[in-house]
Amino acid sequence: MADPIRVVQYGLGPIGLASVAVLLKKQATGQVQLTGAIDIDPDKAGRDVAELLHRDEPSGIVVSADAEQVLRETKPDVVAHTTSSFLDRMHDQLVLCAEAGAHVVSSTEELAYPYDRHPEISAELDRVAQTNGVVILGTGVNPGYAMDVLALTATGACTDVRSVRVERIVDAGKRREPLQRKVGAGIHVDEFEERKLTGTFGHIGLRESLLLVADGLGWTFDHIEETLDPAIALENVKTAFLEVKVGDAAGIHHKITGYRDGVALLTLDLKMYVGAHNPQDAVYVDGTPPIDLVVQGGIFGDTATVAALVNAIPLVLHGPPGLRTVKDMPPPRAFATLPAVTEAAPPAS
Amino acid sequence: MADPIRVVQYGLGPIGLASVAVLLKKQATGQVQLTGAIDIDPDKAGRDVAELLHRDEPSGIVVSADAEQVLRETKPDVVAHTTSSFLDRMHDQLVLCAEAGAHVVSSTEELAYPYDRHPEISAELDRVAQTNGVVILGTGVNPGYAMDVLALTATGACTDVRSVRVERIVDAGKRREPLQRKVGAGIHVDEFEERKLTGTFGHIGLRESLLLVADGLGWTFDHIEETLDPAIALENVKTAFLEVKVGDAAGIHHKITGYRDGVALLTLDLKMYVGAHNPQDAVYVDGTPPIDLVVQGGIFGDTATVAALVNAIPLVLHGPPGLRTVKDMPPPRAFATLPAVTEAAPPAS
Repeated sequence: MADPIRVVQYGLGPIGLASVAVLLKKQATGQVQLTGAIDIDPDKAGRDVAELLHRDEPSGIVVSADAEQVLRETKPDVVAHTTSSFLDRMHDQLVLCAEAGAHVVSSTEELAYPYDRHPEISAELDRVAQTNGVVILGTGVNPGYAMDVLALTATGACTDVRSVRVERIVDAGKRREPLQRKVGAGIHVDEFEERKLTGTFGHIGLRESLLLVADGLGWTFDHIEETLDPAIALENVKTAFLEVKVGDAAGIHHKITGYRDGVALLTLDLKMYVGAHNPQDAVYVDGTPPIDLVVQGGIFGDTATVAALVNAIPLVLHGPPGLRTVKDMPPPRAFATLPAVTEAAPPAS
Repeated sequence: MADPIRVVQYGLGPIGLASVAVLLKKQATGQVQLTGAIDIDPDKAGRDVAELLHRDEPSGIVVSADAEQVLRETKPDVVAHTTSSFLDRMHDQLVLCAEAGAHVVSSTEELAYPYDRHPEISAELDRVAQTNGVVILGTGVNPGYAMDVLALTATGACTDVRSVRVERIVDAGKRREPLQRKVGAGIHVDEFEERKLTGTFGHIGLRESLLLVADGLGWTFDHIEETLDPAIALENVKTAFLEVKVGDAAGIHHKITGYRDGVALLTLDLKMYVGAHNPQDAVYVDGTPPIDLVVQGGIFGDTATVAALVNAIPLVLHGPPGLRTVKDMPPPRAFATLPAVTEAAPPAS
């Protein structure tokens, strides 16, 4: 059997810690090994990651604030990177990893398709990655899977595609508290409008998914329209963390459409709000043949983001080196699973 | 803009001719060009492919029975290969293409995952492909997409996978006549059992899909169970080509399951019969999170096989050289589509 893939976790927020938990579990397969953990938070540095996961048994992996030292001393094959949604705040972290000879899989939303928003950073990352023979990849559930890879894949059996519409409905009430706060659940619609003016409100990565799908299909747009509206609560909703009153914002309705010659070619429609009764991920392809793909019940985001990240680890090992997107990697698939052979078989037909 | 990808069509049966039709249409995008067509059938050799498609306007591409000459003279980047379902009958054709420096995308079902059934041929094809710097890839809708790539992709957002169940229900009554005959629509159940004894009855490629998914997930089985039963007609059905009487075979129910330690880890369940009321493609992942993915109405096979084949053309260009399967290529997506900008926009939200 091959040696386990050596992985350093860079960033120990909620997603990073969840990634650590998944990696530690997968170590039992012998296919992967956590060799280090990086976070600048003084409350985390110096502590065993197991402690941060509220576990009694130490893992032996102590968090360090010194990324350079961790990379140098543990020589990871891959860095799982989860520090920020925004590329300009931390692209030097990615450079550091690449220069240490490590591939990078990152949940940074802007990295899912960085070429449009950050052409210069993209060029630099591509150059550094190629020079060091590594892949830098942005992935996650959204962007990185639900509204882009799944949409592209849905067109894979079509000879013609006239337009594509992707709809994701997320019941934010079942997600972690920061996400519920982030989508504005429970705030007045006036406050919603004020937050919009900050420019950092709404789902991050919708434009990246749009451009990723367009690139994959070889499409260009002459006009892109993006709207962000409150999903208004039609009833009072109470989650584990907050309350939403009827008429207030229950979350977001974020939509982006790419047009050419006035025709909507590609639409991504995202609703994330507490109290959503019909969570789902859907891709409708007006093509030959037509495709009506639905993930019923939706793809549960908190888990799936970590899954998309960790599942990309074995895929980046085989390059080709450079800044890549999920459309350049092999089809995503679960990695280092442990089929629970003592559990019951799936339902018979 | 890049030069068009030069493609030779090798094999002009129903799928091959449909491929030619799609390629000729896509030429308008400037991304692909049909440069030759090969078939040994004396009724086809010497005739313009447009004539075989019952078109008045000649295409300029005349069918030749001399594969070597066509490859040498037209120097294709990629050969679209559609001559047989079985590898041992024609792997020398693939070698010929590779030695001419052409990548190959083939609808040969056994090529979708050839390593198990044909280890020696696989080793030879891999060697020849690597030596000549080309990719040899088997693809199609099934195997190659509906029951393997889609299943793998469905697990891509899961941290754990305990088992996977794939169900494809095809209304054979809407498919071409050879397929209706092939699944035994209208024959008596006794004749069905007799045909089973020939060993070439049933869907070709189910085992290939099973092993492809298992390989992608890193799973091995200690036992594989395969069953082929008639789908019994519960009513009289009349298609454009044949009649099925109640109680006779309406088609096939072909199922394969991979077990470990007595547990069914992966099941592919295929029903192809005339009169199916609920065609669909479904993937159920018993994982974390669980995934319930359905292509409602199913993926229409005759078109989709050609689509999967043609859509793989740009993907094989970027290697890596060798015998590959669809799990090694980037996620499938439509290629050289012509968004019909004068047509209506998709339905509003």
